[in-house]
Amino acid sequence: MRPLFHPALEDIRPEAILYALSDPERAAIYVRLAGAACGNTCSALAELGDRIIPKSSLSNHFKVLRESGLIVSERQGVEMRNQTRCTELDERFPGLIKAILSAYGQIPGEPKTD
Amino acid sequence: MRPLFHPALEDIRPEAILYALSDPERAAIYVRLAGAACGNTCSALAELGDRIIPKSSLSNHFKVLRESGLIVSERQGVEMRNQTRCTELDERFPGLIKAILSAYGQIPGEPKTD
Repeated sequence: MRPLFHPALEDIRPEAILYALSDPERAAIYVRLAGAACGNTCSALAELGDRIIPKSSLSNHFKVLRESGLIVSERQGVEMRNQTRCTELDERFPGLIKAILSAYGQIPGEPKTD
Repeated sequence: MRPLFHPALEDIRPEAILYALSDPERAAIYVRLAGAACGNTCSALAELGDRIIPKSSLSNHFKVLRESGLIVSERQGVEMRNQTRCTELDERFPGLIKAILSAYGQIPGEPKTD
């Protein structure tokens, strides 16, 4: 099984972050992960609101999030556990993730503003 | 000649902003426009650093920036004058544009941080 690619913090590029979060479905998945308080993990995100995301799309979304540097994935048996890298990302790009989630009206733990 | 499309402020979507600025060349063009202090216009941006951007690419970059809501373009004779919508955008998505430009290390008027 191929190892999962995660960029080092210093190799994370703003363009990759912006591209990854420019897809509203992917942004919603990221929000769900971020809502787990940057610590818990979540491997079953196939339902977003009332939509069901096909497993292949979901897998691709996680790949884009992971390779852009937004999340860390870890295989655990047949499952994949994912968590955000928000703390270290906020050191590298202060305020960026929060401003993006706020623009989507989706800061975890805060009421929807839009 | 077809009128230029500009979305109304309330129709501007975060995903369009992120997508438009996820291209470093387009982001650099935006930075140049924003560097004109949100007021001046600039129609000749074919040189970015030591690169020359072909006219067709440049025209497409401006179209993406305009239709995402990042800039306003105005035909003046054979020229197109462009300026950013940063003040109104900052009201709609507080901090977003500044955080993105900061991530690129390119806030106009501030030293490069990266």
